[in-house]
Amino acid sequence: MTNNTATKTGLVVSAHSADFVWRAGGAIALHTSRGYNMHVVCLSFGERGESAKLWRKGEMTEENVKAVRKEEAMAAADVLGASIEFFDMGDYPLRADKDSLFRLADVYRRVQPHFVLSHSLHDPYNYDHPLATHLAQEARIIAQAEGYHPGEPIIGAPPVYCFEPHQPEQCNWKPDVLLDITSVWEKKYQAIQCMAGQEHLWEYYTRVALQRGLQAKRNIGITAAKTLTHAEGFQSIFPRVTEDLS
Amino acid sequence: MTNNTATKTGLVVSAHSADFVWRAGGAIALHTSRGYNMHVVCLSFGERGESAKLWRKGEMTEENVKAVRKEEAMAAADVLGASIEFFDMGDYPLRADKDSLFRLADVYRRVQPHFVLSHSLHDPYNYDHPLATHLAQEARIIAQAEGYHPGEPIIGAPPVYCFEPHQPEQCNWKPDVLLDITSVWEKKYQAIQCMAGQEHLWEYYTRVALQRGLQAKRNIGITAAKTLTHAEGFQSIFPRVTEDLS
Amino acid sequence: MTNNTATKTGLVVSAHSADFVWRAGGAIALHTSRGYNMHVVCLSFGERGESAKLWRKGEMTEENVKAVRKEEAMAAADVLGASIEFFDMGDYPLRADKDSLFRLADVYRRVQPHFVLSHSLHDPYNYDHPLATHLAQEARIIAQAEGYHPGEPIIGAPPVYCFEPHQPEQCNWKPDVLLDITSVWEKKYQAIQCMAGQEHLWEYYTRVALQRGLQAKRNIGITAAKTLTHAEGFQSIFPRVTEDLS
Amino acid sequence: MTNNTATKTGLVVSAHSADFVWRAGGAIALHTSRGYNMHVVCLSFGERGESAKLWRKGEMTEENVKAVRKEEAMAAADVLGASIEFFDMGDYPLRADKDSLFRLADVYRRVQPHFVLSHSLHDPYNYDHPLATHLAQEARIIAQAEGYHPGEPIIGAPPVYCFEPHQPEQCNWKPDVLLDITSVWEKKYQAIQCMAGQEHLWEYYTRVALQRGLQAKRNIGITAAKTLTHAEGFQSIFPRVTEDLS
Amino acid sequence: MTNNTATKTGLVVSAHSADFVWRAGGAIALHTSRGYNMHVVCLSFGERGESAKLWRKGEMTEENVKAVRKEEAMAAADVLGASIEFFDMGDYPLRADKDSLFRLADVYRRVQPHFVLSHSLHDPYNYDHPLATHLAQEARIIAQAEGYHPGEPIIGAPPVYCFEPHQPEQCNWKPDVLLDITSVWEKKYQAIQCMAGQEHLWEYYTRVALQRGLQAKRNIGITAAKTLTHAEGFQSIFPRVTEDLS
Amino acid sequence: MTNNTATKTGLVVSAHSADFVWRAGGAIALHTSRGYNMHVVCLSFGERGESAKLWRKGEMTEENVKAVRKEEAMAAADVLGASIEFFDMGDYPLRADKDSLFRLADVYRRVQPHFVLSHSLHDPYNYDHPLATHLAQEARIIAQAEGYHPGEPIIGAPPVYCFEPHQPEQCNWKPDVLLDITSVWEKKYQAIQCMAGQEHLWEYYTRVALQRGLQAKRNIGITAAKTLTHAEGFQSIFPRVTEDLS
Repeated sequence: MTNNTATKTGLVVSAHSADFVWRAGGAIALHTSRGYNMHVVCLSFGERGESAKLWRKGEMTEENVKAVRKEEAMAAADVLGASIEFFDMGDYPLRADKDSLFRLADVYRRVQPHFVLSHSLHDPYNYDHPLATHLAQEARIIAQAEGYHPGEPIIGAPPVYCFEPHQPEQCNWKPDVLLDITSVWEKKYQAIQCMAGQEHLWEYYTRVALQRGLQAKRNIGITAAKTLTHAEGFQSIFPRVTEDLS
Repeated sequence: MTNNTATKTGLVVSAHSADFVWRAGGAIALHTSRGYNMHVVCLSFGERGESAKLWRKGEMTEENVKAVRKEEAMAAADVLGASIEFFDMGDYPLRADKDSLFRLADVYRRVQPHFVLSHSLHDPYNYDHPLATHLAQEARIIAQAEGYHPGEPIIGAPPVYCFEPHQPEQCNWKPDVLLDITSVWEKKYQAIQCMAGQEHLWEYYTRVALQRGLQAKRNIGITAAKTLTHAEGFQSIFPRVTEDLS
Repeated sequence: MTNNTATKTGLVVSAHSADFVWRAGGAIALHTSRGYNMHVVCLSFGERGESAKLWRKGEMTEENVKAVRKEEAMAAADVLGASIEFFDMGDYPLRADKDSLFRLADVYRRVQPHFVLSHSLHDPYNYDHPLATHLAQEARIIAQAEGYHPGEPIIGAPPVYCFEPHQPEQCNWKPDVLLDITSVWEKKYQAIQCMAGQEHLWEYYTRVALQRGLQAKRNIGITAAKTLTHAEGFQSIFPRVTEDLS
Repeated sequence: MTNNTATKTGLVVSAHSADFVWRAGGAIALHTSRGYNMHVVCLSFGERGESAKLWRKGEMTEENVKAVRKEEAMAAADVLGASIEFFDMGDYPLRADKDSLFRLADVYRRVQPHFVLSHSLHDPYNYDHPLATHLAQEARIIAQAEGYHPGEPIIGAPPVYCFEPHQPEQCNWKPDVLLDITSVWEKKYQAIQCMAGQEHLWEYYTRVALQRGLQAKRNIGITAAKTLTHAEGFQSIFPRVTEDLS
Repeated sequence: MTNNTATKTGLVVSAHSADFVWRAGGAIALHTSRGYNMHVVCLSFGERGESAKLWRKGEMTEENVKAVRKEEAMAAADVLGASIEFFDMGDYPLRADKDSLFRLADVYRRVQPHFVLSHSLHDPYNYDHPLATHLAQEARIIAQAEGYHPGEPIIGAPPVYCFEPHQPEQCNWKPDVLLDITSVWEKKYQAIQCMAGQEHLWEYYTRVALQRGLQAKRNIGITAAKTLTHAEGFQSIFPRVTEDLS
Repeated sequence: MTNNTATKTGLVVSAHSADFVWRAGGAIALHTSRGYNMHVVCLSFGERGESAKLWRKGEMTEENVKAVRKEEAMAAADVLGASIEFFDMGDYPLRADKDSLFRLADVYRRVQPHFVLSHSLHDPYNYDHPLATHLAQEARIIAQAEGYHPGEPIIGAPPVYCFEPHQPEQCNWKPDVLLDITSVWEKKYQAIQCMAGQEHLWEYYTRVALQRGLQAKRNIGITAAKTLTHAEGFQSIFPRVTEDLS
């Protein structure tokens, strides 16, 4: 149950190939800068549901769209310093069978993550998102079981965080963690700019980062962080274990 | 808005004079052992509602009961290494006017706490408990305001945690923090034993600590803490600001 | 902590003088018919807020309205077989000080109830209603305390049920108990007819009883009650202790 | 129960003298532009809790601060086209007695509002805010009662909306109405600029309006509003009655 | 993204062939009377789970039951003025594969609805009901995607409403819209009478309409609708976008 | 719809082969001692996910593990006095197709249970658990339908209870029933000891029983049960129908 690698690791499970950028790009860049190995799994390319601009160009095929989306995602991961892989499970609707579940469980076993990021547990605008989270959760449970691939090193109990959905209140998403991403904001914005097909979201998520930044300042203790400007919000699924409450 | 004292501090707001022992004795002892100054405010002595054994002795007056309870609480605070003060506001029912609110706000200003502990937000078995939490919350807000005693140093935004009520599920209390109190359990149990009038609760809260301890183990990441045996649960009211998600 | 009276008892805390009829008239009549002593406390007469028809007659004073309402309530209690008393605390708004709280705690001590009925915990249409419930809850807590009027027999832990508000879903009220009042429906309807000033509600609460009756049939186990036609819904505040799950 | 005035009216209950600007300035300006008479009640000036910049100037008294805040609020109301009055109840803490309640009920009777705006029902950062909403709710209930000032025209059942708090998710606030304020955004921003003492919030609430604007676009039906850029979010307390679901 | 048809349209997704009558018959008739084209999709005939009376006749086959149920549903739709189609997916349990999902998405594309009606999101008494709602929700999302049948006109963002389940509180269903169906009540009752196999529900849903009618009156603003007698309740899934709050 | 057997019956649906012991062993033994026939269905053996100790022995195959687990479960059922059967559906992940659903519906038809026990509705630590509950719920619905195996006696509406999960608050589980299992505790502990592979849980669930026992004492009415020491908690899914509220 131990992690023999010296380096800490984090795992991001993204329903579509751009979600990890808008919603967790700061967390990825920040932990990379702190020495973590960050790994992203994109379950689909968002080829049907999140590539409107590409489809409107006309003369597109699903294969073309997927290729463009893959390239964008790889470029963004590269900027953020993360490794990335694609499950190509299809979107709108995303559907997971046992094979996908085991494939993801195997990623957990390989990566041995110290924390996991995925989508909110509810999203009335996007059914693929919660499905991704539940897949991430169930794969984590399987990777913890001694009886799955007996003999292989199991994983511990990494905390799982839900990153911010597009309309947070409508998804019953409530952040209990505000991550200070000020030091890596420039990198996140650079990654955002890799998403040429969704330019209308660039400023939206810049504003999200600024709002969460100001909220983080409001929630900081006695030693005020005057320089904090950008943040990302996360909702924990599990209680955290600690030895200090300040 | 800065805290000039070199030492970190914590504030505990306890409705009755024994609550801080059962529910936060581990947190107090742990932070004391880590160098914090911990301060406890007891709003009442629990003289009416939580001193059944004393009353059953007969020949008791409210003043006698309060004196005994005060002595017990002081002994327990002493064991835990905390300073303590008593507001003597009465219990069953506890009621707070503006003066009590300002008195508590003044404690905040004086202590400049790095974190605050109080009761759950709901408790159908004990209306004094949530009242204490709301008083602690509102006093914190007032102590943050520049216009309250202008010129005096205001406080920052210390996190507030709700400690465990007697019947957690019935109080809609859900711990999102499990504090490892293994290293100070002996001290907590010693403090518990100061509460001679509520001996029936000693083993109850020992079992609570063991259950929370096992739950903490289940929620720990890759580096399993084999030696963790006792814990206390807390529910955060505010999001925490951090730079590391593992 | 024992109840020396051979007869079981129930206590109903009603914000206004007609609430106990619409919302708990069946429960009162049913338990009376089963040999309970049922006692009703009306905190106010509903003289301002629930006497529109009387006020529209013109030439009315608050004293007149209260007198009419009192008479109606006494007649209804008589039909249902309950004793009744009036605290005359005023309505719209109902406000409770410590004296009212202790007065109600004394009723608990005197009645030694085996169960308690009051309003829902929320009601955006009527702030007097939840206030009555919270007063009933806090008085119950005080009546349980050895330190309140030491030496007097304290009460046990009678279950508390919230009866049905006027717009149940808007009050976040969810019944977990459906009481079969078929055998006493005629009595309840007779009591309802004592409320001359609120005739528009007679058929409303008849329909409520029929709907809850059909819902009760849907929730009955293997031995179907073919004769069940009328029911009242209640929401428990505390868990029940039992030795049989069927 | 009828409203004899030809003009429709709206009532805004603001805990502190600037809240109505940040949170409902668009709604006020929009309805004014549609011919409504909008009226604002400021329960306090926010003199203690929301005037940090003024206090930091030094040499300030509470009276000075209140005067400055009043002037700012009047200027903002003027820009938005609303009438305004001040209850001067004090802040941090705001406390309401029966007189304040009746005073507000009398405003309801006078204004006969077609809708009401106030704060969120919960706010762990600001206890004055929910207190204002509950006062607004209870005053509305009293103004509906025939027995309050009998003979006076009572009010109907105007919908009540909670406007957006500073940290929406932390307040369990979930908007179910998005109001298109594109046409009056310039006016709202002009009113915002009257709040010289809280300049750090100008851009925060500009971003809020842009985010809610984009969310509104996402929630619009078949006839897309290409020109919609700014919105305000509101949470309804009561169900709305309608004859058209599109 | 525009709807070229001059006529507004509404879509109803009904798990079993009678649900749309009890739960949305008024909404259908009302919008038909206002010039909408209303279209009903019955996912199953309720042949197993909601045809007890037919089965008790004996000598029945599933095909017979389905034929009778289809006839009843067509008659009811005819009374209400709606078009209707049957997916014949089976009931108890209803199960949806990708084909059913795409088939329903194609209906969305064809109908281009201005609003959508389906079941509550939870129902412990009937698992087919929430499954229908989730299918309706996911099909709506797919019909919005440019990448599904690229080139075909996508749909906008029609509001989705959950109609009333049989035991509303047990389904955590809370109406935020009360639709005045007084003008079409006779038509709804006529449609209800087409459901010969479920006669025991006729009066149940008549009472539902009367209760919701009285509740609607309670929630109406200043201009009281004296003539309002019958209503249907709905719960919105998405926020509505508006320019008027009264 | 009647149950012709003279003996009352209870059904327990357990995701893995040991769950019924920890979570419902007291309820089983208690009802057996009261003359009920209790029947347990184990959907899987927990061979992958809950047999860590066995796997760590090495040289194990899934078939071996299942055999050991089966033997332990049979021994425990024997101690508790229950009959038991195994569906062998596999665990981590448990997945249910229509055949499993019908197989369980057939058990309902055969057993005609007066009450049903299964897992909590949520469990972020164990996705098999809620899946078992939902299967139990849906099978119950199918067994109630006249159209499923027409002519066969259908079942009534037995109450369904969720038994206690491992980390109750994290599963949003809130007990509303506390079952006094004092009289059968020894038997439960004997059954617990059959679970040789999970010895680390023996004392955990002993403490659970003691805590629930003390909580039960706190919730008992006037006639205090001095001898009550052990209890099990349950959460009801459906309202209960009763004729007595004490």
